[in-house]
Amino acid sequence: MNTFTIQHLRTFAQKVFMHCGMNESDANQAADILLEADLRGIDSHGVARLSGYVRLWQKGRANMHPHFQIVHETPSTATVDADGGLGLVAAPYAMNIAIEKAKQAGTGWVAIRHSNHFGIAAYHAMMALPHDMIGIALTNASPLVAPTHSKQRMLGTNPICYAIPAGTHGSVVIDLATSTAANGKLEIAQRANKKIPLGWLQDKNGVDTDDPNALKEGGVLLPLGSGKTEAGHKGFALSALVDILSGVLSGANYGPWVPPFVAFLEPRTDMPGKGIGHFVGAMRVDAFHPVGEFYAHMQRWIDAFKSAPRIDENIPVIIPGEPETKTKTDRLLHGIPLNNLVIEDLNKLGSELGIPF
Amino acid sequence: MNTFTIQHLRTFAQKVFMHCGMNESDANQAADILLEADLRGIDSHGVARLSGYVRLWQKGRANMHPHFQIVHETPSTATVDADGGLGLVAAPYAMNIAIEKAKQAGTGWVAIRHSNHFGIAAYHAMMALPHDMIGIALTNASPLVAPTHSKQRMLGTNPICYAIPAGTHGSVVIDLATSTAANGKLEIAQRANKKIPLGWLQDKNGVDTDDPNALKEGGVLLPLGSGKTEAGHKGFALSALVDILSGVLSGANYGPWVPPFVAFLEPRTDMPGKGIGHFVGAMRVDAFHPVGEFYAHMQRWIDAFKSAPRIDENIPVIIPGEPETKTKTDRLLHGIPLNNLVIEDLNKLGSELGIPF
Repeated sequence: MNTFTIQHLRTFAQKVFMHCGMNESDANQAADILLEADLRGIDSHGVARLSGYVRLWQKGRANMHPHFQIVHETPSTATVDADGGLGLVAAPYAMNIAIEKAKQAGTGWVAIRHSNHFGIAAYHAMMALPHDMIGIALTNASPLVAPTHSKQRMLGTNPICYAIPAGTHGSVVIDLATSTAANGKLEIAQRANKKIPLGWLQDKNGVDTDDPNALKEGGVLLPLGSGKTEAGHKGFALSALVDILSGVLSGANYGPWVPPFVAFLEPRTDMPGKGIGHFVGAMRVDAFHPVGEFYAHMQRWIDAFKSAPRIDENIPVIIPGEPETKTKTDRLLHGIPLNNLVIEDLNKLGSELGIPF
Repeated sequence: MNTFTIQHLRTFAQKVFMHCGMNESDANQAADILLEADLRGIDSHGVARLSGYVRLWQKGRANMHPHFQIVHETPSTATVDADGGLGLVAAPYAMNIAIEKAKQAGTGWVAIRHSNHFGIAAYHAMMALPHDMIGIALTNASPLVAPTHSKQRMLGTNPICYAIPAGTHGSVVIDLATSTAANGKLEIAQRANKKIPLGWLQDKNGVDTDDPNALKEGGVLLPLGSGKTEAGHKGFALSALVDILSGVLSGANYGPWVPPFVAFLEPRTDMPGKGIGHFVGAMRVDAFHPVGEFYAHMQRWIDAFKSAPRIDENIPVIIPGEPETKTKTDRLLHGIPLNNLVIEDLNKLGSELGIPF
């Protein structure tokens, strides 16, 4: 474990993206999203993932100078074809369209097809906050999750993200994978050689397992609510919703056809759509309610939940997005810790591309 | 258990609503939603709930001839004040506004305040389907659910509903409470004198319990993902989202202040808003993608999931909304079974109001 300055990581990421053919402004945008993930403590989606995008480009599966095109449009909607570019650039482009539409029409909604991984959903949704808007970001992703009653990988961890502004009181940022546990939690258990709770994972035969290694051996992640509480069908339904809005509605791939993020797995040859899909939105608060009043009530909402009677006196209710904001405050001051495997990977990538890390 | 014709139940419900002061058209609308719940097998939200609305009216807490008002509006949004009326009438009114706005602007979104219980969310969302639109319906509800780490009732079972049209292939209707289990499932366990899975319920001290009676004794329902899989914070976040969009954004009450549906519990005296809140929306499919293509891909999506490899050869993957559609087909033919407690309650209500059941 070693700690790096934000500027060091940002410059490196930007240079790497430019090496792959991105223009300076796009590379800056893409690097900014990775850094925001690291700042917020979503380490799996930060610079740790940089080499993944490069490998995809090396395989010819990511277009680093795409021509984004609005293929369809109404006053409050648009569909963008991202031309095989990275979601790291396409999603902010689409989110800006959503925000501009919301200024005129009250809300704006943009479906994106022919894209690639867009990093953390919260980055895109949070773009709405300074405009006194609620931001929304959904994406489908490489299949890793089985629908209830199946043993097949049919869905990604398909996140749902809503960023809700609360004025001087900050914001409420809901950003959750629709699987019970994300891959990152399995990796932690694998490294620690620990068992995982039943309800996270099924082995390749569809049997619930507490072995975190079962995913690598052909197992599947389970939808939110799985396990003994028998509510996995709800997580499946939420994941299906994200898949349909991001994939089917945009003209991207969906379900088992979503192309894998990792370059060592090949996309299927019978894909029904183009690339992966996202769905973003922006809703002006004052399209519904005076902004000042809304913020006053959001403060009352936040205060009520933070002061709710506790089970354990030392553990308060946590407002969605609160831990990430705390981590960001800390890392802005003290820098970003990276684990040794990530440092090794970045060193290797740097030597390979002639950009010393 | 006894079976009744749809017409019998509909006529009775309509007469009861008219007895309470509703005009014929509103009473017809309200009865239609209860009957649709019974047809779809959501028995807890059908005529079983009729007396609940009457008790609310008797206490002066439901306005049976409200004056709905659009208090705020943009091309794609509106906020409706329902004047203390029933959500059974206010939500379809708002949904029609959303659909009209979507015709012009691509999407339409309506927040509703000062309302009461709106029945099944699916009724409202499904109003969008014949217009080749995706329908959305959310509502907050009487507090029964504790946020993660608290022992206090702070949230309702706050449902999320999306109805997605699929042309001749039907639809995908996602309609789920954001708690792990709905109250109805507890009642089944209570009647059968059975234990429930850990993760559904906490007792009044915040201790997980398998006793379904603990809710009546001051316990709380738990958010989706609770229990040993440690994902309850996700269900809390989803429930919070529904509460903020339905309650805070509309100017209704929210969190612990949402007034109770049951007339024997009094609303709090320090309510920050008006009534309960809903949030509905409609998105034109062809605001994003040609309708014919979308339906062809929805068929492929549905087919892929229905034919996903099974764990148990006899149990297929169930598409969201499929069981309700099957139940409706069956009940349209054979009538609606009601259990004896419900029949007794309707008989009692009928004698009281002079409308023989």
